[in-house]
Amino acid sequence: MARVVVDVMLKPEILDPQGQAVANALPRLGVTDVSSVRIGRRIEIEFAGEPDLDRAREIADKLLANPVIEDFSIKVEDDAKAEVA
Amino acid sequence: MARVVVDVMLKPEILDPQGQAVANALPRLGVTDVSSVRIGRRIEIEFAGEPDLDRAREIADKLLANPVIEDFSIKVEDDAKAEVA
Repeated sequence: MARVVVDVMLKPEILDPQGQAVANALPRLGVTDVSSVRIGRRIEIEFAGEPDLDRAREIADKLLANPVIEDFSIKVEDDAKAEVA
Repeated sequence: MARVVVDVMLKPEILDPQGQAVANALPRLGVTDVSSVRIGRRIEIEFAGEPDLDRAREIADKLLANPVIEDFSIKVEDDAKAEVA
């Protein structure tokens, strides 16, 4: 079992009202040092055998992202997370 | 400027119909070696100064994730991506 992660984010020039709403709520939590929040999608694709980045890119391009307004990046997951809540 | 990334995913025991829909569409693309697809959110928080993981965890816990059905993980972004489309 191998996991490929596709991160889909709005292009930088596209407005992100969902992220803006979170950013606007932060001062009420006492957080004033955040300059921007952007919200996108994280898709975890589990392959039965070897992770196939070309396959994952095809899936992302055809099914997961809208290339007009979104960028995506693909990586093979490593288990080392900086922090897990 | 420092970026903290919060990944919010449904807990493993929670059904993910959105991911299931993608998984069900894959055979039509000729992809048969994918065993599961899970779709969550990726939130990029830009701090004006130093990245503050404790602050980010508080934001994630109060604003970004629903702890009843979702897990989140927090990491400081490194620019090295395995692949960028």
